[in-house]
Amino acid sequence: MFLINGERRQTVDAADRGFQYGDGLFETLAVSQGRLQFLQQHLKRLALGCAKLLLPEPDLQLLAAEAQQLAAQAEQGVVKIIITRGSGGRGYRQPGVISTTRVLGLYPYPNYPADYQQHGVVVRLCQQRVSGTAALAGVKHLNRLEQILARAEWQDEAIQEGLMLDNSGAVVEGTMSNLFVLKQGTLCTPALTNCGVAGIIREIVMNLAAQQHIPVLETVLPPQALFQADEIFLTNSVIGIWPVRQLEQQSFPVGAVTRVLQNQFKALCHPAA
Amino acid sequence: MFLINGERRQTVDAADRGFQYGDGLFETLAVSQGRLQFLQQHLKRLALGCAKLLLPEPDLQLLAAEAQQLAAQAEQGVVKIIITRGSGGRGYRQPGVISTTRVLGLYPYPNYPADYQQHGVVVRLCQQRVSGTAALAGVKHLNRLEQILARAEWQDEAIQEGLMLDNSGAVVEGTMSNLFVLKQGTLCTPALTNCGVAGIIREIVMNLAAQQHIPVLETVLPPQALFQADEIFLTNSVIGIWPVRQLEQQSFPVGAVTRVLQNQFKALCHPAA
Repeated sequence: MFLINGERRQTVDAADRGFQYGDGLFETLAVSQGRLQFLQQHLKRLALGCAKLLLPEPDLQLLAAEAQQLAAQAEQGVVKIIITRGSGGRGYRQPGVISTTRVLGLYPYPNYPADYQQHGVVVRLCQQRVSGTAALAGVKHLNRLEQILARAEWQDEAIQEGLMLDNSGAVVEGTMSNLFVLKQGTLCTPALTNCGVAGIIREIVMNLAAQQHIPVLETVLPPQALFQADEIFLTNSVIGIWPVRQLEQQSFPVGAVTRVLQNQFKALCHPAA
Repeated sequence: MFLINGERRQTVDAADRGFQYGDGLFETLAVSQGRLQFLQQHLKRLALGCAKLLLPEPDLQLLAAEAQQLAAQAEQGVVKIIITRGSGGRGYRQPGVISTTRVLGLYPYPNYPADYQQHGVVVRLCQQRVSGTAALAGVKHLNRLEQILARAEWQDEAIQEGLMLDNSGAVVEGTMSNLFVLKQGTLCTPALTNCGVAGIIREIVMNLAAQQHIPVLETVLPPQALFQADEIFLTNSVIGIWPVRQLEQQSFPVGAVTRVLQNQFKALCHPAA
């Protein structure tokens, strides 16, 4: 079910630049007991992304109200907000006057076993690389073919996520998640210089770690650094924090720092999980 | 006006993965006197692109028939064919059964002055880079944000195209065109290793040059190579071949090789232009 420019509809204009060019961006919000999690942070990132894509800033109060209207219908769920550059003629040049399209959708909460949070998930390294340019780095934009090809590499239900490298061979992120690695007491996460999504939970976790006096480093992470890690975990708005218990053939314990951050994170959720 | 899965409609499902993720690809065909130009080449590239995106091969005969149905209505025009992975749930994982969406649209022919073909166009270098990964290189896919940001860099109507570099600083293509450079009798065009669209007219021009015993080289082109070129021209399916008469502040003659290739190319069009 969708709310499209405020109306309950199921379709968008085929001339919409979101459809023609992936010309837009999105947010994915968890819903718990009818409440949107971290709404303000998502709206802030959405506004920042719109500025980077040269889109007019959307009416954030209106977006919040519509998102809440959808969320109120769900005990648990996911609300996705898409903003596109709207309809326009053929060609990459943007229209002189931009009238953005907003599409809000309510989706069921994915049926992840609680075990993933508690005992961790199994992760692989993808062949498909992730690319990008500085202007779009961090933005949760609608150009997602690389993630789709990466996710198509495995069908094995025992594997929950795949990690993607950039063209230089550094690890950037999971297909749908951000990555953290603890090594000798320092929490490392890939710097998002040319690509990768600057996740909301990624930012929250970095702040939580700093509050715990854990050094946090945004850096270049070769795959070898992962195999030498003490702890690894993944984050996104729907999964929260998933410890990684296995990467390719190597096993990892669910470490003490991961547990501390999980507990701190749960305390921030509304209502507390 | 659109033909969507064979029906005259104006809208697509908001859950279509083309809209949600740019999960698809497209072709742009010129129409002259009701005839589609280079239809077979476009269909061949479309099928190749579908294979690269792990999409089921579309019914090419049906696509050809629908494209011709639209083209027959236009003296001059442009037919755009979009194929997407169809509707699916939230998330990058593709549906178990893929039912592609096909959207064909007829657009007016852009109002380019004949002077562009005859005396050439003015071109700039864009700040926005173009990126990509080997698996998607060459494919005319729906992830076009980089081209949109590049095209948004200038409003000056005296400039007809912008050239884009990759993250290593090599020139890849124009925002909407492929690039050729003649230097000391050799025709060079950027190798499309990690990004760029393998244009239909690009391939035709390479074949024409070979028939004329002009050496053709797909290579890495730094911007300096352009400023030292004897001739520069651009190609795409709608513009054909445009000589470049000015790049940034430097002027170029419309060279003899460009003219030969233009004439050879025109002889291939139906009906001959």
